[in-house]
Amino acid sequence: MSRKWIILTEGHSNPRAGKTACSVIRYRTDEVLAVLDTTQHGKTTQEVFGVGGPIPFVRSLDEAPQANSLLIGIAVSGGKIPTFWRGVIRQAIDRGMDVVSGMHEFLSDDPEFADAAAVSGSQLIDVRKNREKAIARRVGLSDDSLRILTVGHDCSVGKMVAAIEITRGLQRRGRSAKFVATGQTGIMIEGDGVPLDCVVGDFMSGAIEQQILAQQAQHEFLLVEGQGSLVHPSFSGVTLALLHGSAPHGMVLCYEAGRKMIHGLEHLPIPPLAEIRRLNEIMASIERPCPVIGVAVNSRLLSPQQAEDERRQVREELGLPVVDVFRHGSDELVDAVLQLRQRLEV
Amino acid sequence: MSRKWIILTEGHSNPRAGKTACSVIRYRTDEVLAVLDTTQHGKTTQEVFGVGGPIPFVRSLDEAPQANSLLIGIAVSGGKIPTFWRGVIRQAIDRGMDVVSGMHEFLSDDPEFADAAAVSGSQLIDVRKNREKAIARRVGLSDDSLRILTVGHDCSVGKMVAAIEITRGLQRRGRSAKFVATGQTGIMIEGDGVPLDCVVGDFMSGAIEQQILAQQAQHEFLLVEGQGSLVHPSFSGVTLALLHGSAPHGMVLCYEAGRKMIHGLEHLPIPPLAEIRRLNEIMASIERPCPVIGVAVNSRLLSPQQAEDERRQVREELGLPVVDVFRHGSDELVDAVLQLRQRLEV
Repeated sequence: MSRKWIILTEGHSNPRAGKTACSVIRYRTDEVLAVLDTTQHGKTTQEVFGVGGPIPFVRSLDEAPQANSLLIGIAVSGGKIPTFWRGVIRQAIDRGMDVVSGMHEFLSDDPEFADAAAVSGSQLIDVRKNREKAIARRVGLSDDSLRILTVGHDCSVGKMVAAIEITRGLQRRGRSAKFVATGQTGIMIEGDGVPLDCVVGDFMSGAIEQQILAQQAQHEFLLVEGQGSLVHPSFSGVTLALLHGSAPHGMVLCYEAGRKMIHGLEHLPIPPLAEIRRLNEIMASIERPCPVIGVAVNSRLLSPQQAEDERRQVREELGLPVVDVFRHGSDELVDAVLQLRQRLEV
Repeated sequence: MSRKWIILTEGHSNPRAGKTACSVIRYRTDEVLAVLDTTQHGKTTQEVFGVGGPIPFVRSLDEAPQANSLLIGIAVSGGKIPTFWRGVIRQAIDRGMDVVSGMHEFLSDDPEFADAAAVSGSQLIDVRKNREKAIARRVGLSDDSLRILTVGHDCSVGKMVAAIEITRGLQRRGRSAKFVATGQTGIMIEGDGVPLDCVVGDFMSGAIEQQILAQQAQHEFLLVEGQGSLVHPSFSGVTLALLHGSAPHGMVLCYEAGRKMIHGLEHLPIPPLAEIRRLNEIMASIERPCPVIGVAVNSRLLSPQQAEDERRQVREELGLPVVDVFRHGSDELVDAVLQLRQRLEV
């Protein structure tokens, strides 16, 4: 049975809070029937999120009766299910729809939901639930499969999107590439991966190492989705575990133009981009050199002209290719990945 | 009811594997009645671990009938309970003894143990079990309480011991200092703390921040127990979460003389001490300068003369006070902490 999604974003239909919804609509367009947000009724997702074309916003599950899955379409800090969403989740369960959630708080641990699902036969899929227990060993990682990690100057700047777009760009050139998802939205899009921020501390780097060991024989390129930032004090531990667990050959540095303060900690400034690059290269290069090979700028706040100016300036300052993957495509970054591969093989 | 421990170390009574046992004996000597290891029967803990004086090794629980608690005295990588220990754990539970464990695998999740404990009334205390759900906010941290973090070049080099010894040294000088435990052994010794390596990724730095917010008003000095190492790829994420979550004013760098390869990953070399210092200072100083103020060398593998040579050499190379807290006491490090406090107050 193929997925036919209705995505719940009630009251949160903006690209920031609804980034899960936005990305699933972008990369799984054909599987999304509708988005449930009573405050946006009558609009299309194209109008609200800038993706998805004519996919409608609806006011209730009744308006998309063919949907067989409800997807919780926001990622809130802390991961709790807003109380006022419980009714519609319960309604979906009672209809026998599957419910997919990326929250830290698990649907399947909720007695009301679990009991109702047992009756209706619906599946409660908590993509963050995991029992990862492997410790990173740094054994068996192959240099035949090139590992590229997207890193960032902050949370929510486009690390997942950059990894997906580079993966698709490599595939368009006939190369075997795999997007390695490490967050809930990436896992929903790719269908596999590891929800790294929800893994117990000791096993974070082991969890990503396991993903790589499982995929490397099948793919020339693994594009690993970055998480957080080395300078975000709330999440830098996850970021470093991912960096050391994935042991990349190269990195793509992602940032949002105009972002000055750390996401969620708006009293703390983000260091300059050159410093972010330096910190990542230092921490990535403890055993062997691992360079930043390109920059993915998220220029959503800039006009086309401003975006070009920004791009030129950062290109000059860092001496690296710079693209907004939505505005300019991923080609320059795909070239940088292919060049790194060539350089390492020489 | 006060604790009267019997510590289980069957077949693992060496200072490395038995580091939990060793430290609990060292810092809670009066509460330990015996250590259970049939392979060491007839010896004292002083002979085997170098601590504890006449505390005997015994072959069974029968030989220490006054004990009211069984403590699992090893910390194995991965944290699983060895199968052959299950019998004695069950026996302790059936006698109504409490059982305290620092394993990743929880006693209280084991159906056999849980059922038996429900019958006998014994408590199963898993010190690694936690429900930490706070995200680090970097709000409310006070500069009136000086935070010192012990960092290291590897795992198991003496970061806990250095933090405890400096705490006690400050207390001996009449200052109000608190040891902030972040690992299972530290928690067993101190009676509180957070088992950081067992906290879910997103909440690691928040968990230590919560500890600090709860303690800072009562203490002039908080000595935070370090975990892992920034260069240990299996655990560096925990290390950085701790560094950024505790936001220290200064660090004490701990290392074991003679240790060349990374613990558990013996194909990977440990970078030189000066590089370890540099990495820690870089990652600690993103918002404001946080220096390494002293070095705690673990010189257990060296002769007294070699230890003196090592000490002099590192002191000259790094320009910092260097002590083995067991051989030389913690006074030089206590002085360094007091000097840092003075410097920051000027």
